[in-house]
Amino acid sequence: MTKYLPKNIDDLIKEFNRLPGIGPKTAQRLAFHILKSSDLVAGELARALVDVKKGVRFCKKCFTLTTDEVCGICFDAGRDASVVCVVEDTLDLVAIEKAGGYKGLYHVLHGAMAPLDGIGPEDLKMKELADRVAEGEIKEVIVATNPNLEGEATGLYISKILAGFDVKITRIARGLPSGGDIEYADQTTIMRAMKGRVGI
Amino acid sequence: MTKYLPKNIDDLIKEFNRLPGIGPKTAQRLAFHILKSSDLVAGELARALVDVKKGVRFCKKCFTLTTDEVCGICFDAGRDASVVCVVEDTLDLVAIEKAGGYKGLYHVLHGAMAPLDGIGPEDLKMKELADRVAEGEIKEVIVATNPNLEGEATGLYISKILAGFDVKITRIARGLPSGGDIEYADQTTIMRAMKGRVGI
Repeated sequence: MTKYLPKNIDDLIKEFNRLPGIGPKTAQRLAFHILKSSDLVAGELARALVDVKKGVRFCKKCFTLTTDEVCGICFDAGRDASVVCVVEDTLDLVAIEKAGGYKGLYHVLHGAMAPLDGIGPEDLKMKELADRVAEGEIKEVIVATNPNLEGEATGLYISKILAGFDVKITRIARGLPSGGDIEYADQTTIMRAMKGRVGI
Repeated sequence: MTKYLPKNIDDLIKEFNRLPGIGPKTAQRLAFHILKSSDLVAGELARALVDVKKGVRFCKKCFTLTTDEVCGICFDAGRDASVVCVVEDTLDLVAIEKAGGYKGLYHVLHGAMAPLDGIGPEDLKMKELADRVAEGEIKEVIVATNPNLEGEATGLYISKILAGFDVKITRIARGLPSGGDIEYADQTTIMRAMKGRVGI
């Protein structure tokens, strides 16, 4: 970045700058924060960075990230195994769990279909989803992919591969976000909200 | 953060979240970026974090951060040793060097006076500045502290402690930033720009 800083400070700025969404100014700020902090702060972040992949694997059933063979949700006998919510990523699962109220299981695809980026169904846990449904225990598959082009295409593909099974396929509702403002909502959102209207 | 993620992923999210300006969502995004990247990405950032303080010290003359006894700027015989620019932090020095055109030396205070936060002149490299000026070689001290309350107070204090010496004390100009818009400038900035007007 500059010849006016010691090389190791410069190196740290560069490494921070490589992270997504961290620009050169933020990288500088973070590096100087580390420089001014106790060795413990840098050490713990360094350790966490190196440790993050240790023992992490996919749940054998739902493919979320876990350190066990089967994740805590799949292992929980109190959850409704007849409903499976399909999400793109583990963080989507976390968001839905945080929202609370959902008591079924999950299926993590690890991505969405994006032909332009060369991501097809074989790159996602699609076959594994069909296999789960084929076992016959699942009565409803809730598609909770992101409400964008890739998410829609992925949802469509799921409904296609599961068409032959005796399973209900639903899509999480789209409409106006809570706290949103109709005036500032985009046309597609308003159209979806109108179409998806329910009795009160 | 959540019980739905393996502890080591959670730990990394927490460590990122501790950094200034990194909220929980950004921390999640960064942690998953590391998780999906090669081991090299995490390893190099971890190494840079641990290495950042190794061998870094203050320049004996200007107190910027360096790995040598005297920094490259102070060591450079081609620079004008009769002019010293006083800055709050090493990053201010870097910004001025990047802007180019300045050929004098620097003096890094490592902060600004902030009585409310308990930061007085004894916490800054003030005595060291007076000592440098007392040597007699310096003809001009340019105060380049930040244009805020703390920076102003610091500048005032510098002019006071150097009052007895035969040295010219100047302040970098304040006015409208390049590319700025008079319409959106604050009153203080406009006032300063008017006061500091120069012939064209």
